Amino acid sequence: MGTRRDFLGKMSLTALSLPILYSPTSLFAACEQPYDGPMLRVAIMGLGSYGTRVAKAMVDCKRAKLVGVISGTPSKILKWQATYDIPQKNCYNYDDFDAIKDNPDIDAVYIITPNALHCEQAIRVAKAGKHVICEKPMAINAEEAERMVNACKDAKVKLLVGYRMHFEPKTVEVIRMRQAGEFGQPKFFQGQSGFVMGNPNQWRLDKELSGGGAMMDIGIYSINGARYMLGEEPIWITAQETKTDPVKFKEGIDETITFQMGFPSGAVASCLSTYAMNHLDRFYMTGEKGWVEMRPSTGYGPIKGRTHKGELLQPHITHQTLQMDGMAQLIFEDVQPLVPVDGEEGLRDMKIIDAIYKAVKTGGKVDL
Amino acid sequence: MGTRRDFLGKMSLTALSLPILYSPTSLFAACEQPYDGPMLRVAIMGLGSYGTRVAKAMVDCKRAKLVGVISGTPSKILKWQATYDIPQKNCYNYDDFDAIKDNPDIDAVYIITPNALHCEQAIRVAKAGKHVICEKPMAINAEEAERMVNACKDAKVKLLVGYRMHFEPKTVEVIRMRQAGEFGQPKFFQGQSGFVMGNPNQWRLDKELSGGGAMMDIGIYSINGARYMLGEEPIWITAQETKTDPVKFKEGIDETITFQMGFPSGAVASCLSTYAMNHLDRFYMTGEKGWVEMRPSTGYGPIKGRTHKGELLQPHITHQTLQMDGMAQLIFEDVQPLVPVDGEEGLRDMKIIDAIYKAVKTGGKVDL
Repeated sequence: MGTRRDFLGKMSLTALSLPILYSPTSLFAACEQPYDGPMLRVAIMGLGSYGTRVAKAMVDCKRAKLVGVISGTPSKILKWQATYDIPQKNCYNYDDFDAIKDNPDIDAVYIITPNALHCEQAIRVAKAGKHVICEKPMAINAEEAERMVNACKDAKVKLLVGYRMHFEPKTVEVIRMRQAGEFGQPKFFQGQSGFVMGNPNQWRLDKELSGGGAMMDIGIYSINGARYMLGEEPIWITAQETKTDPVKFKEGIDETITFQMGFPSGAVASCLSTYAMNHLDRFYMTGEKGWVEMRPSTGYGPIKGRTHKGELLQPHITHQTLQMDGMAQLIFEDVQPLVPVDGEEGLRDMKIIDAIYKAVKTGGKVDL
Repeated sequence: MGTRRDFLGKMSLTALSLPILYSPTSLFAACEQPYDGPMLRVAIMGLGSYGTRVAKAMVDCKRAKLVGVISGTPSKILKWQATYDIPQKNCYNYDDFDAIKDNPDIDAVYIITPNALHCEQAIRVAKAGKHVICEKPMAINAEEAERMVNACKDAKVKLLVGYRMHFEPKTVEVIRMRQAGEFGQPKFFQGQSGFVMGNPNQWRLDKELSGGGAMMDIGIYSINGARYMLGEEPIWITAQETKTDPVKFKEGIDETITFQMGFPSGAVASCLSTYAMNHLDRFYMTGEKGWVEMRPSTGYGPIKGRTHKGELLQPHITHQTLQMDGMAQLIFEDVQPLVPVDGEEGLRDMKIIDAIYKAVKTGGKVDL
């Protein structure tokens, strides 16, 4: 980690004196010149389909590099080693990965395992002295998330959550517009997050591993979106569950939840989280002076959006590439995205998920 | 009314044997030829801004004609008489309009007065033996609506509610597509109905006259839209009220309500009713096989819509013109719109409004 320390030393009098705000445009404008700063050397924990997507996206990163893997499946490790030229000394399994603390060639571990495993894994990574990047939901409830935040604080490592939309150019532009007052006071957010869940045997439908259903996996986008589109934290939650297929979606696995949030300004959010419908993936926000629609709003492909001022024309860049480069900038240069991606940000969403499940159970309004 | 009876007599063996379904296209195709059937001779009760809009739209009607007025303001009556060539014998006030029963030149009265007056006025019109067309909401609660339905049944007159969207060509096409299964099983409806209410001194913000706030005036579009877009009747309701301006929106006048409805198939609706936000007026429905977005969805101007198959290209025709011609067809030829506009249809919406206000009050789920 010598490189990073040297770099931080060099930067301290200039860049670190004021927070630098992340801009996907400036990032990529800068990248047209050769980059010779430090590289964030990342090990991915969990080599499933999303881990694979992140690994592929990282090939195009300018500031981050996949250098290690943690997996319980030796055959997967062999395949990844071959594909990404990963040395044997950077390969771990779930029993021995605490030894990563003695590996000077890994800066951070990106945890992309089932939700219910994140908390203990993140705490072990923190104790090993490595930065923690954790896929969302960062945990299965706020209590776990809080333990993760504290563990990373204690270990003096960063805890970042995989909020890729916070680096997505059109989303960043909308947040910038909102912060600049271009919509006026935001009044209403509407989020439609969901899809028809295919394979009924995956871990996402196993409560022991997922901690919940659609809300954990896809509903969280509407929760987080409401917060970054409105720029406030909710003060109350109501929620209603509908289940049409109790065989596929067992006890504790939510299929469809509509939920509402009230905000201090009087703004309201009305959201859908579902594993039973397609043609959704839309955010809408209206304010006193304007509006924005994003559709698709959070899918992996190009985001499309328009506001009262016209179509959003920022380029599509693979979200995970932007995210990992952005997180490297955050770690090495303290360049902050307009909306945080830290553990506290993840914890806020977990508190809301807890409240949504509570509201479903009690049928009443839950104050936050 | 001799013309009408003769016509019904002639039609009885053909048109009345099977229900004929309304089609705005066939209506206007037919209208290219001169129309020589009966004219629905209408008196408008309540000469306010919406009454004025209806009167102007009726100038272009082929099957309906404005022939009378009922108003408490003599100066307005004089003005309307001059504008629309209305004979003195067809002019009434709120005290003497029961005498309309002896007027053979009026077939129907369109009640466009404050909501809280509809019930008693409709019952008086029915007792006078005239068809009742009543602006929506048809009453201020289901109990009143039921009395209106019964009174019109007893008097053997039609009771029609001003659901202009049921005659609007793009809306009719979407309903046709839904009925034909082109969206597959509908799963989710999202309705955003509202605008920033201007003039704080109008009757719509006076509980004694309006019976409620935004829900009565504009939220009802999302209620009715959910029902015609999903093709089902809700079995439960939840609702949450937010009030940011208790001076403008006094006790009993709802400013912003989010509400949700569950349907027997498992479909859900998530809706917004507000007097405090602009840039709304959107319907969205997704089904197993397709989707539709309408925006604007219920404004007076051209409706815009697109589905998974492309843009809806049906022409814009002034809604109130289509509505009044359609209602004339309904009365004289029993041509039914794809979704009814009768008293029972209005009563269903009133039961839902009652449930929404109850859900706001209790904070819990209200079963229907």
